[in-house]
Amino acid sequence: MLDHIDSPEDLRKLDLKELNLLAQELRLFIINIVATKEGHLGASLGVVELTIALHYIYNTPIDKLIWDVGHQAYGHKILTGRKSNFHTNRQYKGISGFPKISESAYDSFGVGHSSTSISAALGMAIASKLKGDFNQKHIAVIGDASIASGMAFEGLNHAGVTDTDLLVILNDNAIGIDPSVGALKQYLTNVKKGTQKQDNIFEALNFQYFGPIDGHDLPLLIKTLKELKSIKGPKFLHVITTKGKGLKQAEENQVKYHAPGKFDAATGELREKDISHLADKFQDVFGHTLVELADQNDKIVGITPAMPTGSSLKFMIEKYPDRAFDVGIAEQHAVTLAAGLATQNMVVFCNIYSTFLQRSFDQLIHDVAIQNLPVIFCLDRAGLVGEDGATHHGAFDISYLRSIPNLIIAAPSSLTQLRQLLYTAQLGLKHPIVIRYPRGRGLELNWKIPFKKQTIGSGIQLFKGDKVAVICLGPTINQAKKAIQEINKPRQIGLYDFRFVKPLDETLLHEICNSYPQLITIEDGSEIGGFGSAITEFVALHNYSNHVKVIGIPDRFIEHGSMEELREETGLSTEAIKQTIASFL
Amino acid sequence: MLDHIDSPEDLRKLDLKELNLLAQELRLFIINIVATKEGHLGASLGVVELTIALHYIYNTPIDKLIWDVGHQAYGHKILTGRKSNFHTNRQYKGISGFPKISESAYDSFGVGHSSTSISAALGMAIASKLKGDFNQKHIAVIGDASIASGMAFEGLNHAGVTDTDLLVILNDNAIGIDPSVGALKQYLTNVKKGTQKQDNIFEALNFQYFGPIDGHDLPLLIKTLKELKSIKGPKFLHVITTKGKGLKQAEENQVKYHAPGKFDAATGELREKDISHLADKFQDVFGHTLVELADQNDKIVGITPAMPTGSSLKFMIEKYPDRAFDVGIAEQHAVTLAAGLATQNMVVFCNIYSTFLQRSFDQLIHDVAIQNLPVIFCLDRAGLVGEDGATHHGAFDISYLRSIPNLIIAAPSSLTQLRQLLYTAQLGLKHPIVIRYPRGRGLELNWKIPFKKQTIGSGIQLFKGDKVAVICLGPTINQAKKAIQEINKPRQIGLYDFRFVKPLDETLLHEICNSYPQLITIEDGSEIGGFGSAITEFVALHNYSNHVKVIGIPDRFIEHGSMEELREETGLSTEAIKQTIASFL
Repeated sequence: MLDHIDSPEDLRKLDLKELNLLAQELRLFIINIVATKEGHLGASLGVVELTIALHYIYNTPIDKLIWDVGHQAYGHKILTGRKSNFHTNRQYKGISGFPKISESAYDSFGVGHSSTSISAALGMAIASKLKGDFNQKHIAVIGDASIASGMAFEGLNHAGVTDTDLLVILNDNAIGIDPSVGALKQYLTNVKKGTQKQDNIFEALNFQYFGPIDGHDLPLLIKTLKELKSIKGPKFLHVITTKGKGLKQAEENQVKYHAPGKFDAATGELREKDISHLADKFQDVFGHTLVELADQNDKIVGITPAMPTGSSLKFMIEKYPDRAFDVGIAEQHAVTLAAGLATQNMVVFCNIYSTFLQRSFDQLIHDVAIQNLPVIFCLDRAGLVGEDGATHHGAFDISYLRSIPNLIIAAPSSLTQLRQLLYTAQLGLKHPIVIRYPRGRGLELNWKIPFKKQTIGSGIQLFKGDKVAVICLGPTINQAKKAIQEINKPRQIGLYDFRFVKPLDETLLHEICNSYPQLITIEDGSEIGGFGSAITEFVALHNYSNHVKVIGIPDRFIEHGSMEELREETGLSTEAIKQTIASFL
Repeated sequence: MLDHIDSPEDLRKLDLKELNLLAQELRLFIINIVATKEGHLGASLGVVELTIALHYIYNTPIDKLIWDVGHQAYGHKILTGRKSNFHTNRQYKGISGFPKISESAYDSFGVGHSSTSISAALGMAIASKLKGDFNQKHIAVIGDASIASGMAFEGLNHAGVTDTDLLVILNDNAIGIDPSVGALKQYLTNVKKGTQKQDNIFEALNFQYFGPIDGHDLPLLIKTLKELKSIKGPKFLHVITTKGKGLKQAEENQVKYHAPGKFDAATGELREKDISHLADKFQDVFGHTLVELADQNDKIVGITPAMPTGSSLKFMIEKYPDRAFDVGIAEQHAVTLAAGLATQNMVVFCNIYSTFLQRSFDQLIHDVAIQNLPVIFCLDRAGLVGEDGATHHGAFDISYLRSIPNLIIAAPSSLTQLRQLLYTAQLGLKHPIVIRYPRGRGLELNWKIPFKKQTIGSGIQLFKGDKVAVICLGPTINQAKKAIQEINKPRQIGLYDFRFVKPLDETLLHEICNSYPQLITIEDGSEIGGFGSAITEFVALHNYSNHVKVIGIPDRFIEHGSMEELREETGLSTEAIKQTIASFL
């Protein structure tokens, strides 16, 4: 069946029996490709029937269909002309793991971060009205984890007082990447169980509410959507689905099978790699070290907005459930909650991915920095992140944080540095601190060394030279070190691990400016306004005449690919760094 | 009565009759001072009884009382030891117009931006629990406009699944600065009228709901709070108040009397100043020009998050109510709504104060810039804003925007430049644009000149010299021009109005770098990572040896004061600029 579907047009010619068959084939197709090519699995398996029903009933791409976050859009991609290149999903120059306007007319809105779909769909619906087009439909499909985020509420609150043709479909599977949390989730659970008393939140917000219905009952979905299509005004359909539907292990272990890596398509069995020779991830050093520190310091509290597994805060949540909180997709709340705790002298570790701290930028300034509360921010997935692509790279944090007064900004270059900074921060600082570190593994097999207090704002000289000073931030030092070894001109090249963007190690920097005519800065962040700019500003301020070359992520959005490919593309690979350094010798 | 109240301790000794008297006196005290010293009026008048009742029943400052936003906290300040210096409210070195931890033990949390109170109070409540303190109470007082913001929902959603001792008081007066909007506001109106059917949003979120009660009935407030004090878990009290209560004009014209300027304390009559000789505000040039453009271009749509009056988008809302939207305090939604509209080729003007764009920073990157949608952002109140102080200065936007790919960043230096940029932007750009402009008046009496398309990324040379190039951004050119005239060494000093931070006018910059040994950049934004940094980066990139001196807002939070005082403090006054320039001659 699937072989003959090149677009939703083809799909609309099928009868119900054929559609059911198509659902089976589509599910299998997704499983087979993700099993070998990796990617996000559970979310797309959960909406196979919904995807078919939507494209069957609605006149896509004229009607606008927006998938919130986009992890669940694989079926949608396969049915809308991307079946033949779906095996390139998330690969360099291949198709994106998320919907993307530039990739297909069927992708009405680019996504990646959560809770944007209602606002975007409402914008499209208002545009239709203004153009006098009263036929066009607008559908946002949003999960129960995403709808609990404040931004989704803002969208509902506005949509409820419009007369736009908007349908919000709640894909309720009680899980985002980790299980959903919060009062709204309890409410939805009660609705499903039938134990919720009279209150209907969505009707109170002026939506016509329909459901809950079984999201795997394709005939029912089709019938319901057909009815809804002719109802005017903002509508809300509550659909119950199972994440991972159709693959036993994915249904039973929904967190693991969100993005399971390679697995056996027939049995669902994971293909575990031998990782015994590899060092741990930065995430695990954070997670385990925090538990060690919490054992000794009962003022320590941990916060994550919906990433307990990804950030490894789960270790603390398991051991100290009263002192570690998953607050759901609520970055704004997470940061101000941290500020509130800090006013009462708690030692708060607030772990947020770099790209998601963009969601709580104001709270960081307004609630933490202005009040100079010593919250400890652990910025996970700083720098390039690989296959998740443009929406997920932590490219901007240094640039957007650097102008905030009172803030300390650190970037450990290794697992042990991260460990020691976590230790140092909880001893008590006079300011808030951001500790940014990358996604993935470090290099040191033995990082569990004794704790030792670090000096805030101190950089480290690794080699001394006299021609070119290579000044690194974070793990870029690994590529730089290798590049310098390959160049093999030891007396000419100095190497520095600065560790802190703010405060800068000014003593060391004066020494460097007085010792080398040429400085090269390297960071895994935007080349505009970041660490390199801080060095450039310093050189200008002190009237030095050193030449500064800044290496960082160039001024464009970087797409998806492996870390190696993206480093090559951005000039952050060992080879590229080698060439840059050599050009100044 | 008020004469004898130096702290809530004194207040707690009074009987009900005396408390009622105190309420009258407190109201009068606020009116008398604001009448001559200016400031925010209506909000504080509306909560006089609530303020007294809270301090009477709760053991402040041990119990934690958080005023959302803080416009309504004048009564609180006066009753908590700041009566004698309340006349310094909002003045340079005087007390702040907002609660502030550093100012008083009774100010549990610093505020200014909206919707933070629930998260902060919850943080404090969790801290109490962890410390084993089960006596401490935590109260957030939040208005109906603020509670409709997504962040407040995130706080409620988390609080509802905790067993913390938290009381959220909804101060429902149907208005923020402008009248409240949205479905939640309609819901609250129905609740007040008794026409809301069964649904109770707050009970659905696991709060125990009480009310609505009359917020001006002091005995009832005291009785209700006394009862609530002994009830465990998260509680919600719905209080109905009238903004401006007790001053007829303020009750009748709530928008105008939010911050009315000087008025007659006895009659409430405004003391209108003669402004016929003054040029218009940047805000009005935006508002009126947008209507002119919308007359001719039916694709134009306007959006403001809750600032129709402050931004002057009200003019378009009045003339084209279908095409201009006040979406409430929902900056995140505002930006993604704009993106949704832009996907359908609408020409969207999204007007947000610089400090509030911090709330939608992620949406700007993720929904607008990555997709390269040509939304036109008008960033009002960029730079120093005067008496509102640290929470409201638009100090950071250039720094946090500059690293975002695809984005054009403009800063008109005059009313006519703003007008021409608005015109140019709606002709159709290939990228999103941010147009930042300050609070307050320009200099040109006649700004309504014929439209003329501007070249994006082009700067202007005003004078040519050979020693020092003064490179200005935005209205700092006015101080610079005066400073240069006073120095009166015409052949030595060049003056440039750059207009664009991104793209930079590179042709002009090369010319400047080749013509002057010394560059001085001036901007009303952070000296870190901003326009000056862009120039410094350019000089480094092209290996010029010019010395660059950056003048901008220094790396600390700037408090409140008049614009003149703050310019003096930050080195942005004519005199300070004059000295800096002179030091390089």
